[in-house]
Amino acid sequence: GSPFVSLLLALSCCQGLHHNNIDDYVEAEPVFQASKYGSLWPLPQKVQISEVSFKLSSASFRIVDAKASSAGPSCSLLQSAYRRYYEYMFGSAKKQWGSKNNRRSDPSDLTELQVWITSPDSECDGYPSVTSDESYELTVNQPVAVLKAPTVWGALHGRIYSIYFHCQIISYFPFSKSINATIINDFPRFQHRGILLDSSRHFLPIKVILSNLETMAMNKINVFHWHIVDEQSFPYLSRTFPQLSEQGAYHPYTHVYTPADVKMVIEFARLRGIRVVPEFDTPGHTQSWGKGQKDLLTPCYSGSKPSGSFGPVNPILNTTYDFMAKFFTEISTVFPDGYIHLGGDEVDFTCWKSNPDIQKFMEQQHFGEDYSKLESFYIQKLLDIVASTKKGYLVWQEVFDNGVKLKPDTVVHVWIGGRSDKEMSNVTAAGYTTILSAPWYLDYISYGQDWQKYYKVEPLNFEGTDEQKKLVIGGEACLWGEYVDATNLTPRLWPRASAVAERLWSAKNVTDIDDAFNRLSLHRCRMVERGIPAEPLFSSYCLHEYKGV
Amino acid sequence: GSPFVSLLLALSCCQGLHHNNIDDYVEAEPVFQASKYGSLWPLPQKVQISEVSFKLSSASFRIVDAKASSAGPSCSLLQSAYRRYYEYMFGSAKKQWGSKNNRRSDPSDLTELQVWITSPDSECDGYPSVTSDESYELTVNQPVAVLKAPTVWGALHGRIYSIYFHCQIISYFPFSKSINATIINDFPRFQHRGILLDSSRHFLPIKVILSNLETMAMNKINVFHWHIVDEQSFPYLSRTFPQLSEQGAYHPYTHVYTPADVKMVIEFARLRGIRVVPEFDTPGHTQSWGKGQKDLLTPCYSGSKPSGSFGPVNPILNTTYDFMAKFFTEISTVFPDGYIHLGGDEVDFTCWKSNPDIQKFMEQQHFGEDYSKLESFYIQKLLDIVASTKKGYLVWQEVFDNGVKLKPDTVVHVWIGGRSDKEMSNVTAAGYTTILSAPWYLDYISYGQDWQKYYKVEPLNFEGTDEQKKLVIGGEACLWGEYVDATNLTPRLWPRASAVAERLWSAKNVTDIDDAFNRLSLHRCRMVERGIPAEPLFSSYCLHEYKGV
Repeated sequence: GSPFVSLLLALSCCQGLHHNNIDDYVEAEPVFQASKYGSLWPLPQKVQISEVSFKLSSASFRIVDAKASSAGPSCSLLQSAYRRYYEYMFGSAKKQWGSKNNRRSDPSDLTELQVWITSPDSECDGYPSVTSDESYELTVNQPVAVLKAPTVWGALHGRIYSIYFHCQIISYFPFSKSINATIINDFPRFQHRGILLDSSRHFLPIKVILSNLETMAMNKINVFHWHIVDEQSFPYLSRTFPQLSEQGAYHPYTHVYTPADVKMVIEFARLRGIRVVPEFDTPGHTQSWGKGQKDLLTPCYSGSKPSGSFGPVNPILNTTYDFMAKFFTEISTVFPDGYIHLGGDEVDFTCWKSNPDIQKFMEQQHFGEDYSKLESFYIQKLLDIVASTKKGYLVWQEVFDNGVKLKPDTVVHVWIGGRSDKEMSNVTAAGYTTILSAPWYLDYISYGQDWQKYYKVEPLNFEGTDEQKKLVIGGEACLWGEYVDATNLTPRLWPRASAVAERLWSAKNVTDIDDAFNRLSLHRCRMVERGIPAEPLFSSYCLHEYKGV
Repeated sequence: GSPFVSLLLALSCCQGLHHNNIDDYVEAEPVFQASKYGSLWPLPQKVQISEVSFKLSSASFRIVDAKASSAGPSCSLLQSAYRRYYEYMFGSAKKQWGSKNNRRSDPSDLTELQVWITSPDSECDGYPSVTSDESYELTVNQPVAVLKAPTVWGALHGRIYSIYFHCQIISYFPFSKSINATIINDFPRFQHRGILLDSSRHFLPIKVILSNLETMAMNKINVFHWHIVDEQSFPYLSRTFPQLSEQGAYHPYTHVYTPADVKMVIEFARLRGIRVVPEFDTPGHTQSWGKGQKDLLTPCYSGSKPSGSFGPVNPILNTTYDFMAKFFTEISTVFPDGYIHLGGDEVDFTCWKSNPDIQKFMEQQHFGEDYSKLESFYIQKLLDIVASTKKGYLVWQEVFDNGVKLKPDTVVHVWIGGRSDKEMSNVTAAGYTTILSAPWYLDYISYGQDWQKYYKVEPLNFEGTDEQKKLVIGGEACLWGEYVDATNLTPRLWPRASAVAERLWSAKNVTDIDDAFNRLSLHRCRMVERGIPAEPLFSSYCLHEYKGV
């Protein structure tokens, strides 16, 4: 058909244009129009969509390993992805599967997607990492489409993409679908594209975490930063120190993550190309740790007597470091990712200052009145402990600001708003790798289309050399949990985090806000169709509305 | 037991205190403590809770009609309420039902709640109205508790209350429950306690509407203001003018409310003591009407030629009034409530001004350049039409501001922020009944505990005589739909609307914000336990977290 017609059809895939004739309106409203990229999100680095289109039928279409692929039927990561994507494309209506006799395909049908992993090592049984090659090429042609990728990680993105993109460039006739001939060449702009979820302020049931991992994959997010414990509760069930969650969780049975839960989260994420980076934040943000671990926290004093309350981790006791060594040894084996987030933010010195033993220690160490030296003392020892487990680490920006000696491969996490560009400048000038979160605190909500604010952020918009800019490996959208639990997390996160996802994946010059509105409107309907309660951008509808309540 | 112990147990009913020892925290946080009223919400006018407590067992407990009650087994409204509340109290675990032999009750058990409707007319088969008597008295004593109410409407509230309240003053031992001896005397401060939902900016599936009606009942909200159509879409399927939704809905089959749907909503609401007040807003906010009804809207002009776009309803054609007469005749039979909301807000004069026929009409009528006179001309005729259907009407404040002649029983709906107290003063000084929404636009969101802002509103805080104050019959929380659909409506509405619900039900002096925080925290967990994704007030947990995603 003509290009115009096929584009319209493509759009009607996820959000109809029917009755959307907003030109008639008196009030000024965002005008939904067809993007020439349909609902592609995040936008690939390079796309060519042809006018030629092919038919797609669930009865004849198959996703198969290419003959030359280094990943075959034994690669369960890909095989389960194939099943998932087939269902995305055609729904779970298995009735559509024809019997052998029924499986005749039209000569104009697209009947196969061949997946071709080109590196000798497909990395099928490994874990994604910060250096994974996530690139892929997708060529949709008749009768066969080919998805080429060096590793499964690219194939997964391409795969997901191919589906999105199938959905995007698929046109829904009443009972059949069609797809445009297409060539996509794609790779991420940034390697680290993360989302922080906080399971301490409110416990997040596993089901919520899994369905958000699924949604992260739909958005090419590749890092789940699991802010698993904090002041309020300690839901991580430690094999070595079970009393931490027994005493520190909101409830010792119903509000904890067992080793099996954690394992399931990690594997579910791996199958979708997502790293799980756990955060165990110390020495501040640790009230819940103190409930199950005697003497771990600093006793605060009121005058000459202990007040009964506790401050940050006690940095002057050997037992503290014995505990941390054992604890992080466990963590380093439970979480396969190469990195652990060690926190280090917002340490309140009030309690340390009140404690006479700490005061004495400060004198002995010649720290004077500079408690940030004490903080650095603690962090330094902690970093050495964690380094001995062969893990890399991420830390919040205060650790850098306080001049702690860091391993060269440390990732500094910039979160403080206002002049985060200056901080990016400083961190990279010092030669450290960095990720940005300051403009992407999604727990802060406001009326209207705040996704645009997140979308307009340019992470490299700071003073620095090209070398410095290369040290920015990405960013994270943070959804802190004070006001968020299973009841409202998903619609609050999506599609607002999708804006961050495109910023971190697509080319720097992908900044057309109207085109983004049009594509994102469809992308959010696609999430809704897959059962994810992603909230609307503005007055609109989806062909298939959210069915839950 | 001692009063202290029973209070603790009462609280652990819905939100445990376990590990909530926030005194230890360094950071300042809202401190959750036991309210002496447990989780009662909205707080009754008068409560006495005794230290004496009785056991409650699902095997022996029954809810029955009192012998002297004017409502018997034929009152299906009460019978279905009994079933609902029994399930709320004991869960759907029907296994607990003992066989006859098992049904021996402990001498200390509370075994029966007798429901006694005292008026000769129980109103069981009627509809709630603005003059319904919603008062009730609840006496929990052993072995029998009694709920007395003049009509079923009070019994429903008391009933719901009794359950809440059962939940509140029930203590959960591992496998049994107990309840304190209690006397409640209760009635609403305001007669009109509404929530506006908007099914035009986004279509709201029936399921979402029903589950929010259920939640309204839990909060003693008694008016569902159904802003059913607007510019963006016309989902109301009219028997008389089916082309309105055929052309004006987002989708003519999947995004409409059929007559059966509307009937179901109304009956579901009635069974919970909730009025359904539909709004059909004219002459502005009507773009979607124009799609299916030729010549209804004013053609706008660009210079001397029609621009192709349309403005508000065309007030100069007889066909307009013929249409409105037929349309509102249908509406008056479909919706049994005594009132219809006629809108009348935000009429943009630009298009009227551009149209030469309208200009001529203005001259003929000697309206000069005052287009608000034309608006009044239209509204006046519309009000006469609606009055002839024997319905009362509500209008947005502009209709009053523009000096339209109103029937004395008109309800003026104050919504414009800033100086709404002045408007309340003016409206009541002119002798009109009024309801307040200006401070309760819940679609405006912000970070943090904004429920407190809604809670602190005092509706009678304006200059006026006692007579004027009596004209304020209540208010409504409005959740406009630009950014809200099934994906995020429920957590955005609850528990924020609960703050409005208590303000409109409870005594004027119920203003202790800390006590409200403590009760509302438990009340929201109760909603969560009943499957409603009501969002959290702050870092916390519920014994039974939300199970959906």
